Amino acid sequence: MYSTISCLPCTSSALKQCSRLFMDEFGWIEWIKKKAGKVPSGWVGIGDDAAVIPSGSARNWILSTDTIVEGIDFDRRVTPAQAGRKALAINLSDMAAMGAIPQAFLMTLGIPSSWKRDKKLKLFLKGLFNLAKEYRVVCVGGDMTSARQFFCGITVWGEPAGKKAILRSGAQPDDLILVTGALGGSIKQKHFSFTPRVREGQWLAQRGYPNAMMDVSDGLAQDLSHLLRASHVSAHLNLECVPLARHARNLTSALSDGEDFELLVTVSRNKIAKLLSEWKKSFPKTPLNLIGSVHRGSSGIQYYLNGKKQISFQPHKGFRHF
Amino acid sequence: MYSTISCLPCTSSALKQCSRLFMDEFGWIEWIKKKAGKVPSGWVGIGDDAAVIPSGSARNWILSTDTIVEGIDFDRRVTPAQAGRKALAINLSDMAAMGAIPQAFLMTLGIPSSWKRDKKLKLFLKGLFNLAKEYRVVCVGGDMTSARQFFCGITVWGEPAGKKAILRSGAQPDDLILVTGALGGSIKQKHFSFTPRVREGQWLAQRGYPNAMMDVSDGLAQDLSHLLRASHVSAHLNLECVPLARHARNLTSALSDGEDFELLVTVSRNKIAKLLSEWKKSFPKTPLNLIGSVHRGSSGIQYYLNGKKQISFQPHKGFRHF
Repeated sequence: MYSTISCLPCTSSALKQCSRLFMDEFGWIEWIKKKAGKVPSGWVGIGDDAAVIPSGSARNWILSTDTIVEGIDFDRRVTPAQAGRKALAINLSDMAAMGAIPQAFLMTLGIPSSWKRDKKLKLFLKGLFNLAKEYRVVCVGGDMTSARQFFCGITVWGEPAGKKAILRSGAQPDDLILVTGALGGSIKQKHFSFTPRVREGQWLAQRGYPNAMMDVSDGLAQDLSHLLRASHVSAHLNLECVPLARHARNLTSALSDGEDFELLVTVSRNKIAKLLSEWKKSFPKTPLNLIGSVHRGSSGIQYYLNGKKQISFQPHKGFRHF
Repeated sequence: MYSTISCLPCTSSALKQCSRLFMDEFGWIEWIKKKAGKVPSGWVGIGDDAAVIPSGSARNWILSTDTIVEGIDFDRRVTPAQAGRKALAINLSDMAAMGAIPQAFLMTLGIPSSWKRDKKLKLFLKGLFNLAKEYRVVCVGGDMTSARQFFCGITVWGEPAGKKAILRSGAQPDDLILVTGALGGSIKQKHFSFTPRVREGQWLAQRGYPNAMMDVSDGLAQDLSHLLRASHVSAHLNLECVPLARHARNLTSALSDGEDFELLVTVSRNKIAKLLSEWKKSFPKTPLNLIGSVHRGSSGIQYYLNGKKQISFQPHKGFRHF
C-alpha cells in the first residue's frame, strides 16, 4: 500500500521544490492524496498499511493492495513458484500489520507471451495458491491481460482480529518500540521465503497490546519515520538493540535494506513485561526485541548507542520503489 | 473481472485438448477457478462481473478489479486523461453490472521512466479523479511501482443498490433479454468516452427488475453466452432487434466488437411493459431494447431474423484479452 507522505530526510519545502522537477514516490503519494477525495468519517484512507472501511456491522473491513513486477521485484534467480508466493505474502504482511484476519483476495495478472506457452505461469500460481491455502484465504476474482512485462497485483481484505484495526497513527509518548524477528540482508534470500507475521499480528491485536503497528518493508529507519509522522511523535532508537539478521552486512544494512516484512509495534510501557512473558510462550522461536521509545515532538528518530546520543549518525535512506 | 469459463464456440473437449498445448484466457480462468479455493456459502467468487461477500450486516460487499495496460488497452491516439478516465470507468461498469453503488477504490500504478518526468502521469490521474468525483468514489489507497510498460489496476467496491447484488446466474426461462444503448464500433471513440451505466444499473436493481445482469465488454455474442452458461439456460436472439451504434460497421460488428460497456439484462416477461414505460421517463435519452428471450436447455444462442431461425449464422468470436 501507499506509504505515508514523505520520508524524514526530505523537509517539506525540499519536497515541494523537488516535486516541480521530478516527483519521487512520496511526492506522488502526496499529490494523489490531495486528489483522492476526502474519505468519510470513520474511514482510514491513503497513508497506512491498508484502508479501513466501516462495514455497517460491528467489524470494519481492512483492504490492501500490492503488486510485483518481473525484473523489479523478482528476476530469473528465483523460481516462478517463489515469485508467486511472494506476490501474496507481501499482501498478507500488510494484513498482519493491521492486526487483521485476511479472508479473500482479487488477483490481476499481466502476462507476456513468454509466460503463456510454458509452465512459468502455472508454477507462479501454484506458489501463490499454496500460500493462500496455508493462510485460508480464497481467490474470489481478478483480471488477466497481455503485457510486455509480467506483473501480478493482489488486493486482499480481512477483518480486525481484535476490536479494531491497528493503525500507524496510534503511537503515544512513552510507548516502547518493538520489532519482531531480525532485520537486514533480506535480499539474500528471506524476501522470497519470509513468513508473513499474520499470526503474530493477530495475536498482538487480540490481546490489545499495540498502540501502533506496521510492517517493515522499506527499511526500519524509513518505516519508523512513517509511523512517527503518522502519530505526530518522535523516537529514541537504541542502535545496540536492533536485531541483525544473519545476512545483514552491518547496522546500516539492518536499518535500511528493506523487505524484512517484520512487525514494528509500539506498546504502552506498563504492558511490556506481560507482553514479553506471554510472547515467549506463544512464539518461542520468534524474537521480539525492544529497540527504543516514543517521545513527544516531531523531531523524527534520534539515534542512541549504549545511552549516548549519536548526533551525526544517519542511515541510508530505505528502499524507494522509484 | 474474470469472465466465465469458456466461450460457446469452444466445446468442452476442444478446450481441454487446446489447453494442453496453449491455454487461452478462458482456459486459464478455468484453471485458476479450480485452484482458487472454495468460497464460503453465501459468497460469489470467480465467474461474475464482481465478487460478492457477506459483510455481517444486512448488506453485502461487491468487489471487482480491472486493469489497463499501455499499448494493449490504449495507445498514443488517446490523451493520458482519456486513458485515466477509462481505467476507472471500466471498473464502474462492473459495479453497474451488479446493480451496485460504488463507494471507493484502490489503485495500482506501474510507471515507466518516460511517464515519471513529464506531465503524462498527472494528466492520467486527473482524468481518473475527475470521473471519481463525478461518481463520488474515493481513492483509499494503492501501490506504485516501476515498470517498463505503464499499467493501472483498480479494485473498486460498493454495496447493492437493491436488496442484493444482481448476478449473471439469475436468468430464468421465459425471461426477456434487453440491452441498453447501442452496440458495435466502440473502438472508434466510445470506449474512451462511454458513460458507465451506474445510474441505470442502480435504478434497475432498486426496482427489482433484473433476474440477471452483466456489462457487455467482450461483445454481445460472447457475453450473452457467459450469462446463459452461468444461468444454465439458452436464448433466442432476434438479430433485427440488436441496436447498432453509429460506428458499428454491420451486425457482426455489433455482436462482437467488444468494449460497448452497455448493460445486458434479463427480466421476467410480466414486468416488461411496466419497465419500458418507467424507463422512458427516467432515461429518455438512453435506449433500452428488447433483443431476445431466455429458454430452457444449454444450447447457447439461437439466432433469429424476422422470426426465421438462422442455422448457419455464426458471429465472430468476441474480444479476448490474449
